[in-house]
Amino acid sequence: MTSLPFSALEIEQYFDRLWPICRSISGDGLRTSFQILQELIPLELKEYATGQKVFDWEIPKEWNITDAYIITPSGQKICDFNVNNLHIVNYSIPFEGELHYNDLFPHLFTIENQPDAIPYITSYYKETWGFCISWNELQTLDKNGVFKVVIKSKLEPGAITVGSLVLEGETKSEILLSTYLCHPSMANNELSGPLCMAFLYKALLAIPKRKYTYRFVMAPETIGVIAYLSDYGAEMKKNTVGGYVMTCCGDDAPLVFKQSKNKNGFLEKCTEHALKHLQLPFSVIPFAVGGSDERQYCSPGFNLPIGSITRSMYHRYKEYHTSLDNKSFVSFEAMIQTIDVYLQCIIAMEQNIIPICLVPYGEPRMGKRNLLPSSIEPNDKRRKDIDRMFHLISWADGEHDMIEIAEKRDESVSEYQDILAKLIDEKLIAIK
Amino acid sequence: MTSLPFSALEIEQYFDRLWPICRSISGDGLRTSFQILQELIPLELKEYATGQKVFDWEIPKEWNITDAYIITPSGQKICDFNVNNLHIVNYSIPFEGELHYNDLFPHLFTIENQPDAIPYITSYYKETWGFCISWNELQTLDKNGVFKVVIKSKLEPGAITVGSLVLEGETKSEILLSTYLCHPSMANNELSGPLCMAFLYKALLAIPKRKYTYRFVMAPETIGVIAYLSDYGAEMKKNTVGGYVMTCCGDDAPLVFKQSKNKNGFLEKCTEHALKHLQLPFSVIPFAVGGSDERQYCSPGFNLPIGSITRSMYHRYKEYHTSLDNKSFVSFEAMIQTIDVYLQCIIAMEQNIIPICLVPYGEPRMGKRNLLPSSIEPNDKRRKDIDRMFHLISWADGEHDMIEIAEKRDESVSEYQDILAKLIDEKLIAIK
Amino acid sequence: MTSLPFSALEIEQYFDRLWPICRSISGDGLRTSFQILQELIPLELKEYATGQKVFDWEIPKEWNITDAYIITPSGQKICDFNVNNLHIVNYSIPFEGELHYNDLFPHLFTIENQPDAIPYITSYYKETWGFCISWNELQTLDKNGVFKVVIKSKLEPGAITVGSLVLEGETKSEILLSTYLCHPSMANNELSGPLCMAFLYKALLAIPKRKYTYRFVMAPETIGVIAYLSDYGAEMKKNTVGGYVMTCCGDDAPLVFKQSKNKNGFLEKCTEHALKHLQLPFSVIPFAVGGSDERQYCSPGFNLPIGSITRSMYHRYKEYHTSLDNKSFVSFEAMIQTIDVYLQCIIAMEQNIIPICLVPYGEPRMGKRNLLPSSIEPNDKRRKDIDRMFHLISWADGEHDMIEIAEKRDESVSEYQDILAKLIDEKLIAIK
Repeated sequence: MTSLPFSALEIEQYFDRLWPICRSISGDGLRTSFQILQELIPLELKEYATGQKVFDWEIPKEWNITDAYIITPSGQKICDFNVNNLHIVNYSIPFEGELHYNDLFPHLFTIENQPDAIPYITSYYKETWGFCISWNELQTLDKNGVFKVVIKSKLEPGAITVGSLVLEGETKSEILLSTYLCHPSMANNELSGPLCMAFLYKALLAIPKRKYTYRFVMAPETIGVIAYLSDYGAEMKKNTVGGYVMTCCGDDAPLVFKQSKNKNGFLEKCTEHALKHLQLPFSVIPFAVGGSDERQYCSPGFNLPIGSITRSMYHRYKEYHTSLDNKSFVSFEAMIQTIDVYLQCIIAMEQNIIPICLVPYGEPRMGKRNLLPSSIEPNDKRRKDIDRMFHLISWADGEHDMIEIAEKRDESVSEYQDILAKLIDEKLIAIK
Repeated sequence: MTSLPFSALEIEQYFDRLWPICRSISGDGLRTSFQILQELIPLELKEYATGQKVFDWEIPKEWNITDAYIITPSGQKICDFNVNNLHIVNYSIPFEGELHYNDLFPHLFTIENQPDAIPYITSYYKETWGFCISWNELQTLDKNGVFKVVIKSKLEPGAITVGSLVLEGETKSEILLSTYLCHPSMANNELSGPLCMAFLYKALLAIPKRKYTYRFVMAPETIGVIAYLSDYGAEMKKNTVGGYVMTCCGDDAPLVFKQSKNKNGFLEKCTEHALKHLQLPFSVIPFAVGGSDERQYCSPGFNLPIGSITRSMYHRYKEYHTSLDNKSFVSFEAMIQTIDVYLQCIIAMEQNIIPICLVPYGEPRMGKRNLLPSSIEPNDKRRKDIDRMFHLISWADGEHDMIEIAEKRDESVSEYQDILAKLIDEKLIAIK
Repeated sequence: MTSLPFSALEIEQYFDRLWPICRSISGDGLRTSFQILQELIPLELKEYATGQKVFDWEIPKEWNITDAYIITPSGQKICDFNVNNLHIVNYSIPFEGELHYNDLFPHLFTIENQPDAIPYITSYYKETWGFCISWNELQTLDKNGVFKVVIKSKLEPGAITVGSLVLEGETKSEILLSTYLCHPSMANNELSGPLCMAFLYKALLAIPKRKYTYRFVMAPETIGVIAYLSDYGAEMKKNTVGGYVMTCCGDDAPLVFKQSKNKNGFLEKCTEHALKHLQLPFSVIPFAVGGSDERQYCSPGFNLPIGSITRSMYHRYKEYHTSLDNKSFVSFEAMIQTIDVYLQCIIAMEQNIIPICLVPYGEPRMGKRNLLPSSIEPNDKRRKDIDRMFHLISWADGEHDMIEIAEKRDESVSEYQDILAKLIDEKLIAIK
């Protein structure tokens, strides 16, 4: 593993600050979260106003909330938004009133087979209200009583906020890193994404020379990304060579690489090469439309080469979209490793150039260039580097990229970097 | 299985009428057989006159026969054509005479290792005569006696008869269905073919909308098809997208799909997809020149994408080309299933269009189109259809056909028909 | 196995004459070796003068030697060049002097873990001198004594000698056969190559009709081939369809086919087809730059389709590059088989034409051409040839070569030669 310019503890400190904020696809909780993350990554924010058409969609009203709770017939305050912001159905309209249990019940959401968990429920496009409650707590309610309901929310014209940043490289070809910011207090399926992206940005800054331009997008899922694509999609379609939706990457489950639609593309070649040589357990799954914002980036009109590297993936762990996806579910050491995995995959893309031999007729005479030790024992560790040097020169015909060349010896492209640099210095190799 | 507009009993009744007729590659037995089958399928008949050149071949003389038998030295009538028309070598020239056993013997054909079977022998292109006899009966003949031989046949200028029909569809692209009519009383390797074709025609008529034009060819094997191709081959080469030689499809052995020469073509994709999802036992074998009229359709000059779906295949069952390939060898229930299999394969071709998403930038907002239920439980059976809808839209990039899209979820293309129709109605999808 | 126009004994006799000569990449030992081999194959010799630039290289000085030895403190003559020419480091500069053991030691080369073997060491491009000695003998030397060293060599401007021959065929397309001549007394890794090439030449001469032109190159490894390529490389790049570096082919280990860089090329198809149907044990390995002159032929600027068929391969047997790679390591019967294997692979290339059917519409009527027996029993051995005939005609669409056609029936292309000739005579088939 590379040494990264930050620690697990730093990630944890940002996690703790972001955790209690009630985020949604719009509103001040979202804005506050962006402000905190901007300390790490200088995202530019753009507000898309309510009612704006973005492709097939329209920006919805902005939602803000200050309080919400239920008072039971016995006077107990339950489903208190200020205790756990999952208690309120996200985007609930304002409401105050007294209801008999029978009338309240259709507004209560629970998960019978996870009796301790509060579910996470939203209603962005249908104006209604509701509360989420654990099955166990639901059983304690008086079925004959009258409950007082208070929801102090606003659903009004406003905007949704989208963050993005373009980090320029030597070429206009782009690698996209995208994550979403819109879930209230959830750990693996939300905060791991923005946190890993923000710290990955710091790691990328530390790379001295970047061939690719990096585009970072942090936006409310679906509507935020559709809004962003309505501005930048055409440009991204022209320039994007690969990228990832960063999500569900915060626990220590084995890595999962979800491919883009082009399962034999540049992204897939580089990512699978890097993962294989990292010697961590991982699996590869094909693109499927269920998931996150890859469904926007990979929609037929864009079809960008965007995949995703996750840990415990959406829909595949029982804590998903419940109050059990919390700090104890994730690991900040695991996030450090996740960031490094993303970094290594990106470096594989950076390194996967096509070398061309400039002395292509017969083998070059290496002795006269001081590229060979004057004598070498068969077991000398430098022997492998000499073999790699001749191997690289021989295959540098402009038809093979560095990963293909390295894989012919079942090696990682990273083991050829020093040799490649030397051969370029000696004018034996150029980059196509 | 689909419900077909006919019963096994109807097929059996036609079988019983066709069975006793002595067919050959020409003659009145052939014409009578066509007349009966025309009750089911309105084939147009064309007569190709003796002597006409058809590609590398020439139409032979027409053969008719009314009687043939042998009288043994003890006065017994054997090898009686009117008892079993296999007794006479098909295309035997007229002959009457008395011969010693030794002179008769070279004209007798038998199968030693199937001692009860009368073989089926022809001599279309060498003018001779002969009788077919079971090994057991042959043993009873008096090797020192004189036998009287009577063959009342005619081999004279005339014609061979070819039946065909073009059933027009929405496009000029054609699917070919071809079978042969020329064998005397044989069940699996002859009558199953014409019968399944004639009834399949009725099933196809029942399909409300057919994209493809269907060409039916029923002809004497080899020479009949070569004659037909000399008229229509160029047209068929231009229009044919797939098709089948229907033969050996009358018993209940597992299905065999014999591919055309292009083992990765449209025909193969659709047929193998349909067979796989029908969940019947089947195997796939590559094109081989041994077989039936696919050797003409797939000859280098035409190379049409024509395969074959059979049950017990020519050369692969011991009753083949003997008197044991009779009614007790076949099953009319099995023929019903065979017809349905052909129908399902054809429907897979009809359904395998390429969809194009008309709202391709980001996912379309389905909620506003009433394409989603307002709420849905995770285990709702409609969940699968919703998943299929998003899946189809996402892959409708004009690069994937419906089979490829369905197979990504290991599903049958038939499960997407209602969704596809809905999305076309909503102008979310068009057909390429 | 084919019957070859020579015997193992003849090969052995040439081996015995060539064995004692001290060859190098230049010099009179090399010239004498060429003269002996010219009795078998009329190679033209060309001298490349010292100092000539050949691509990235320069022709080195010429080396000749008459004597070399060491006198021990006790007066014993050891490391005597005239006893075993491996004792002297190849290309040692002249030297005479007396040295203490400590000063002599850096000039001695040995192999500790093969204590009986004298290693083979060269120093073509660094002017120095040295002796090779077995580990066991090294242990007997007096570590406190003074040794007299005598090396009567010359390292002066001169030339290196390269042999080659072009045997013209019906077309300009070429098959290359290349081997090297530069090692002193070594059996598998040297003499097997020139001997098998020289006798293969005789076998090729015996083929009545050769489609391909054959280019034979026998040269000092690396520098000799680079020099040759500087003259003929451009021409070879234009014409070469396949070829082999013949080396390490003298013992009876299983065959190894080392592919060219294009693992799916014509060379690979023909060689692997031939090897498979020869039913000898063999393995196939991909191109790797370690090896012999294929690294020159396959360098990016040329990338010729050159492979190699070996027995015990360089670096893979412990006797390699030692005095143990001697007559007892090789087998002249094995060399006969090696030559036949090369011949069969070459014949597969000769036979692998693309047939085109000239009567392509429907099957040709074979009966009228007397290409079918008038009657044939099912078990007649000729049945297979009839099946092959129809099979060949059906696939003769100009898209399939003879190996592809034969492999569809899992047969060798050689089994189709008589049928192909007959069909060409009958004007049913032409060669594309």
